[in-house]
Amino acid sequence: MTSEERRALSLVVQKYGGSSLADADGIKRVAQRIVATRKAGHSVVVVVSAMGDTTDELHDLALDVSPVPPGRELDMLLTAGERISMALVAMAIANLGFEARSFTGSQAGVITDSTHGKARIIDVTPGRISGALADGAIPIVAGFQGVSAGSKDITTLGRGGSDTTAVALAAALAAQTCEIYTDVDGVFTADPRIVPSARKIPVISYDEMLEMAACGAKVLHLRCVEYARHYDIPIHVRSSFSSREGTWVTGSKAHGTNGPGEHDEQPREDAMDQPIITGVAHDRDEATITVTGIPDKVGIAAKIFREIAEAGINIDMIVQSTSRATGQADISFTLPRQDGPAAMTRLREVQGDIGFESLVFDESIGKISLIGAGMRSHPGVSADFFGALADNGVNIRMISTSEIRISAVVDAADLDEAVSAAHRAFGLDDGRGEAVVYAGTGR
Amino acid sequence: MTSEERRALSLVVQKYGGSSLADADGIKRVAQRIVATRKAGHSVVVVVSAMGDTTDELHDLALDVSPVPPGRELDMLLTAGERISMALVAMAIANLGFEARSFTGSQAGVITDSTHGKARIIDVTPGRISGALADGAIPIVAGFQGVSAGSKDITTLGRGGSDTTAVALAAALAAQTCEIYTDVDGVFTADPRIVPSARKIPVISYDEMLEMAACGAKVLHLRCVEYARHYDIPIHVRSSFSSREGTWVTGSKAHGTNGPGEHDEQPREDAMDQPIITGVAHDRDEATITVTGIPDKVGIAAKIFREIAEAGINIDMIVQSTSRATGQADISFTLPRQDGPAAMTRLREVQGDIGFESLVFDESIGKISLIGAGMRSHPGVSADFFGALADNGVNIRMISTSEIRISAVVDAADLDEAVSAAHRAFGLDDGRGEAVVYAGTGR
Repeated sequence: MTSEERRALSLVVQKYGGSSLADADGIKRVAQRIVATRKAGHSVVVVVSAMGDTTDELHDLALDVSPVPPGRELDMLLTAGERISMALVAMAIANLGFEARSFTGSQAGVITDSTHGKARIIDVTPGRISGALADGAIPIVAGFQGVSAGSKDITTLGRGGSDTTAVALAAALAAQTCEIYTDVDGVFTADPRIVPSARKIPVISYDEMLEMAACGAKVLHLRCVEYARHYDIPIHVRSSFSSREGTWVTGSKAHGTNGPGEHDEQPREDAMDQPIITGVAHDRDEATITVTGIPDKVGIAAKIFREIAEAGINIDMIVQSTSRATGQADISFTLPRQDGPAAMTRLREVQGDIGFESLVFDESIGKISLIGAGMRSHPGVSADFFGALADNGVNIRMISTSEIRISAVVDAADLDEAVSAAHRAFGLDDGRGEAVVYAGTGR
Repeated sequence: MTSEERRALSLVVQKYGGSSLADADGIKRVAQRIVATRKAGHSVVVVVSAMGDTTDELHDLALDVSPVPPGRELDMLLTAGERISMALVAMAIANLGFEARSFTGSQAGVITDSTHGKARIIDVTPGRISGALADGAIPIVAGFQGVSAGSKDITTLGRGGSDTTAVALAAALAAQTCEIYTDVDGVFTADPRIVPSARKIPVISYDEMLEMAACGAKVLHLRCVEYARHYDIPIHVRSSFSSREGTWVTGSKAHGTNGPGEHDEQPREDAMDQPIITGVAHDRDEATITVTGIPDKVGIAAKIFREIAEAGINIDMIVQSTSRATGQADISFTLPRQDGPAAMTRLREVQGDIGFESLVFDESIGKISLIGAGMRSHPGVSADFFGALADNGVNIRMISTSEIRISAVVDAADLDEAVSAAHRAFGLDDGRGEAVVYAGTGR
């Protein structure tokens, strides 16, 4: 093994979120953690978000001068936040006697498409990062941002984009692991603000984490997990305010990849012990649109969804019901609440053409999702889930499932009760032996 | 003439300082001014400083995390300020229905050496700016910043650097004129806070403006004027809070270059009428060091000044006096006050080697300078100047002169009185016919 290869093996990418970098003290604390990792013998590449609420403040400033700021300029503005935090982190590290060099997304070789505001990374060419590492310096990279391949304009990756930057850099640099530092201890079996007995999940698979992120768990960005799964980069989600282990997101829960030296204690689970349900996610940011009185003709539903798709809106769950008496159908679907007005406008424009009766927009809904790779091999999970909701007086309005997930739309007012009930029913309150507890609930 | 050449002829570069961009309202007002210039038929390239006190605030933040921040990282941090203001100005222009595109110093092709904190522009390759102009867009360029030729690191040009950016871009784009928008109406015959009757100077030569800037007039940065003189770019210094004409800085007062259409009223002066003194500048940011008891040997003075030069400190005025009795000499010199401690430390280190007796550091001084190309052809200006100071009880400690300037070091407490006295004595209070007034003072 060459020394180059050894270096690559001990490389760790660390990403620090805005809450960890809220002020000068936070920045100094982060610098100490970075230097400690370096002193433990690892090469470190750091990715930072903007300090505290900087990005939101800049966004407000933009709206003060223009109600609809151009995407190119909004991206130019918002990327100032990471430029500030990365330079400050580099200075704080220098003050501890180590050399650090900050790099913008563009300088770090984060190449994206040109979709301002939610650009996708299409390539990473981290030549300057490798150069800094070879010089013994600690590279500090601006998260959330890149440069478009064609026009060389500055782009941003959308909310949570810094996580994606970190994983993409970890993949490009063949890092051993990617640590995502945040203000919580890891991924939990449910939101502890709703379920105080929720437990930290020690290890979760990429697939489960993807479902969690898609169903409202905010700790990791969906695209970041997709990237990690594609390149098989183990992610360690943990708190920057403690030294506790967090949650490992890996390819296989039974064969978690080791982190760097200090993290060799990473928990491993026996496949036999694997719980059926890994966690309960919830989402308050969706809404439903119901289209009533749709004529019974071939292709009408397709027309409706084509209109929505052309407006750039992703829909999630769909329920269709047909009246035997009239032959007319009603279609309900869920979509991000913020896209509701645009979808309603679009559908009203084609109402005459498509020939439906009415449109109903409902914001007072919530979505609860059970996620667990274990449910593949356990029939009856749906029945127990619906039973638990019914026993607690929660009415189910829509349902959708995947191999490792069951989701239900309920009244917004019932959402907290539904999350608590499901968490209890599947024994997530009571330690790790979920399969045993599950048996004990009467099945 | 090709359309390319016509475009170049009507191109104006406008630079807006931080006080003009202090908040959202300021940004909108600047956007309206830019759009008005465009609507008047000119192509416009805009250079912006950071909003209000942003740069100072970022600097304070840096000192919160590191007492001596590395220059590379400090530059990375400080350049965030212009990134914010340029994007906001571009948005505000878009909101008025015109396309604007913001560019960092690096994107605008401002290539510098690698002296972080006070880099020098070594080349300007404004391909993307020309491209934006060709597309009909208004380029908004971050002032104060560039990218180093070798290491591709972000650099800053030092205080007032945005003025230099504007003039350098005007030269590279063959612009007709460069407008520097600030919060005062132009260059004045003296600081109006000291001399309420000070008048705005309609036209001033590059050489005079260089002397004014070097002698403490803060309205334009020295390097910016050097650049304008070298490339013969007329500068129009004016207020962004009014539409009044400001001060034209040009190659010849008698043959001022016309500005763009709206500025065709630019004043021209008959060379016969040219005043002897154009203005009175003052500087409170200097100090003196006196080295006493220097042995009478060849090369000792050179040794002293070599030490100072090697510490990177520029000295200004020098006075040497030799005692006939002992043969020993005293040398006094002025230097920027902030460099005082470093210079004293350096000289103390070599005291034994050089063999002088003592060092005296004095901060309680001020410098007053008379500037005017007219003094070339009028002997006796010095005598009248010294007479005016003496008549008002001001003691002169050091003197230096150039072809178009006389400077005197006085006690700090006397500085305001000295400025007022000189301004009065040379008739600057009383309208433009200074030569006549000068004759009236008894010469």
